[in-house]
Amino acid sequence: MNAWSVGLLLCLAAWPCLGQQQTPAKAAAEWRKQHEAVILQEFTTLLAIPNVAADKANLQRNAEALVTMLTARHVAAQLLTIPDAPPLVFGEIKTAGAKRTIVFYAHYDGQPVTPSDWEGGEPFKPVFREVNGEQRIYARSASDDKAAIMAQLTALDALQDAHIPLRANIKFIWEGEEEAGSPHLEALLRAHHDLIQGDVYLICDGPVDQSRQQTIAFGARGDTHLEITVYGPRRELHSGHYGNWAPNPALMLAQLLAGMKDSEGHVLIPHFYDGVAGLNETEKRAIAEAPVNDSALREELWLGHVEGGGKRLLELLNLPTLNINGMSAGRTGPRANNVIPATAMADLDLRLVVGVDWRVQQQRVIDYVSAQGYTVVDHEPNQETLLKNAKVAFVKRDSGYNAVKTSMDLPISEDVIQAVQSAHKPVIKLPTIGGSVPLEGIGRAAGTHTITIPIANHDNNQHSSNENIRVQNLWDGIETMAALLAMQ
Amino acid sequence: MNAWSVGLLLCLAAWPCLGQQQTPAKAAAEWRKQHEAVILQEFTTLLAIPNVAADKANLQRNAEALVTMLTARHVAAQLLTIPDAPPLVFGEIKTAGAKRTIVFYAHYDGQPVTPSDWEGGEPFKPVFREVNGEQRIYARSASDDKAAIMAQLTALDALQDAHIPLRANIKFIWEGEEEAGSPHLEALLRAHHDLIQGDVYLICDGPVDQSRQQTIAFGARGDTHLEITVYGPRRELHSGHYGNWAPNPALMLAQLLAGMKDSEGHVLIPHFYDGVAGLNETEKRAIAEAPVNDSALREELWLGHVEGGGKRLLELLNLPTLNINGMSAGRTGPRANNVIPATAMADLDLRLVVGVDWRVQQQRVIDYVSAQGYTVVDHEPNQETLLKNAKVAFVKRDSGYNAVKTSMDLPISEDVIQAVQSAHKPVIKLPTIGGSVPLEGIGRAAGTHTITIPIANHDNNQHSSNENIRVQNLWDGIETMAALLAMQ
Repeated sequence: MNAWSVGLLLCLAAWPCLGQQQTPAKAAAEWRKQHEAVILQEFTTLLAIPNVAADKANLQRNAEALVTMLTARHVAAQLLTIPDAPPLVFGEIKTAGAKRTIVFYAHYDGQPVTPSDWEGGEPFKPVFREVNGEQRIYARSASDDKAAIMAQLTALDALQDAHIPLRANIKFIWEGEEEAGSPHLEALLRAHHDLIQGDVYLICDGPVDQSRQQTIAFGARGDTHLEITVYGPRRELHSGHYGNWAPNPALMLAQLLAGMKDSEGHVLIPHFYDGVAGLNETEKRAIAEAPVNDSALREELWLGHVEGGGKRLLELLNLPTLNINGMSAGRTGPRANNVIPATAMADLDLRLVVGVDWRVQQQRVIDYVSAQGYTVVDHEPNQETLLKNAKVAFVKRDSGYNAVKTSMDLPISEDVIQAVQSAHKPVIKLPTIGGSVPLEGIGRAAGTHTITIPIANHDNNQHSSNENIRVQNLWDGIETMAALLAMQ
Repeated sequence: MNAWSVGLLLCLAAWPCLGQQQTPAKAAAEWRKQHEAVILQEFTTLLAIPNVAADKANLQRNAEALVTMLTARHVAAQLLTIPDAPPLVFGEIKTAGAKRTIVFYAHYDGQPVTPSDWEGGEPFKPVFREVNGEQRIYARSASDDKAAIMAQLTALDALQDAHIPLRANIKFIWEGEEEAGSPHLEALLRAHHDLIQGDVYLICDGPVDQSRQQTIAFGARGDTHLEITVYGPRRELHSGHYGNWAPNPALMLAQLLAGMKDSEGHVLIPHFYDGVAGLNETEKRAIAEAPVNDSALREELWLGHVEGGGKRLLELLNLPTLNINGMSAGRTGPRANNVIPATAMADLDLRLVVGVDWRVQQQRVIDYVSAQGYTVVDHEPNQETLLKNAKVAFVKRDSGYNAVKTSMDLPISEDVIQAVQSAHKPVIKLPTIGGSVPLEGIGRAAGTHTITIPIANHDNNQHSSNENIRVQNLWDGIETMAALLAMQ
């Protein structure tokens, strides 16, 4: 009998037996107010462990720290492993008489960092800063996605302290490879098939709506990448001695990319939107009910124009995207030289919606590159290939995953909405978040539904330097997680 | 009476009095063969002094070392200075009875370096490597332009050792700011007007023809730069949460640059070629007589196609260029993130020919940017500017200088050709080099002609990482310089 079973015994009828004052969310808020310093200390200690994909030793340290943190909360915890993948942190609370198993997914790895781009230069030294009168914590993964983990752990503390028993079986599945596109998640889940079953996976990742209201998303876009390299001269050339004669790969790349979209952001690559599944009535209504943040966002982001031909941001998230993550050739700014660069490179990410497979979408882009006169190769081209072809593009295909969407009309969907509404009102319901989480693999491996419950602030610099969490979002998230942990 | 006057006394009739075996070039070759180790030691010691523009202390060290090296050759040497500029190294040999003053120009500063891009990572630690059976020295400025300085100094040693007297007054003017576009050269020359007069400035800079034959160029293209920054969101955004809505500045930049040239490299910016002075008959003949290296170069550079619509490289050098030196947005390769970058930047260099002023050419490009719907500003735009305008481009204008061309038919031109031919045959004569040297300012300040005598190998990675000099080019250059030092 574990601590959670004891909790159940103490209040046999579970939390509806408590006075109205003692909902899980309110208990969480009370607990948090009395323990802010301790919570933040535990959180910043976790943030201080570097968590980039290249640093396997520290990823392992993160995973082990999380097992310790779960165990301290009387949660049976272990690391699930397969070769070549960071471990999956797995925690489980079995609840007597439970009818459902709720799985809380989050990830403990973070995006790559370029320390020199960070204020202070140390992405793993958490720093508190006040922004417009609000406290924020700056560190890699402060938002994406260690905040979600911290909210879940703190919600457990609060429920236990308030003797609010759980009613469902609870599982925690915290991944260590999400920012790399979760290449091993499905295999990890399949390898531990007996452990990872559940009635719903709650994907605790991503930001809430820009209005700062609690958001529930019933899907996420898929994602894949292409890295395109085009070739000029074999070595950088003096731009004076060869200008007008040696082709400049930066210009070639510019010309290649320029035609991919029109000035409204509409992708011009043939068939790019083929297969896109439309929105049903519930989804359209949910979007219509959501706050319109577009003008405020334009102001906040200093945007003199936006794409989409007048459509709202929330609508546009339901379409696939083609985005240039990065583009480089030669050097710019103080490091610029008078050269014709040897190569030019662009990293594209393709966000996907239901109905568009990531492999098909990659191929559409590659076909477009070919149609522009490029010989497309899947490896660094050699002398012969470069000499024989006027234009050569090396296109490196990343792996990817498809979009997933859960119906808003399912009983589990309605119960999740109700639980979250017990913590915050109003709740914004979205057919999809714009971001991507590898829900497809979860769906396949666990045979279950996924619903996304983000808690981070939208302006968190996720994926960039100076990532941060607004402390109030962490506090609100603890309440949300408490409500979900206590649901039936 | 200095050492050089003594030399004159020893052989009153100067070098034509010597046996045919003892031309200046042959004396230089003899001397070099017997002193290779010492020459290379002195050269690599010079190359080991860092010489990038940002490192003023080391630029000063370079200048002082050069004064010492001149003084050791009995050349009266001093530093000419004005505020805010690296010193000009000035050396002078007065020759009794001289009818002409020949000025040897070179520069001791080098292009910026990115050490991590260099094999070995240390651009100022000269390394000998064998490439295709030929010795080369790798270091910043090994070719551009300390090799020319070393060739001149060694030629002095050889002439002195062989008691070959000088017949003209000789001056050395070695600049410390050429790679920054010589912003203070004209002012420096004007400030020391009495010292810097001469009948011709021999610009000892740049590479010889790709056939490796000694080259004389009677002009150089002008050069100027524009740095263009375009703006997306104020901060990098998660590409999932804002893709399709927030404009991507990388794509905007690609679209802006793409239209500047056609696929043959012809610049499409209106009026770009207006005013270009054509070639006269002597110039056309000189180009026709020069070796055709285009096919060999394509092979060497792995180029499956070249620009120019079938024209030869040597012809194309007589047209202005628009080149993308560098282009950047977000990050690429292993450092890429899923973001919509906040800005995208391109560094352009504009090479100029006689008849096209650099300020006019800058304006033509800026007018083109405006015509694409951009509000062009000359400073970092603020929130108000970005919110008020759909597309904003911050265009930073660099300074610049115009192209210069000296007639091949002048007596001094013919004498220089003859002197160089006494060292090497055949000699390739070009109306212009493709590269740029600030000849315009020299012409204005010194009221004289300029003729360019390069000695470096064409495949020297000038302006890039792994810059090098082929040792044989240094040896050949010593002979060329000896012939020119001894000319009447």
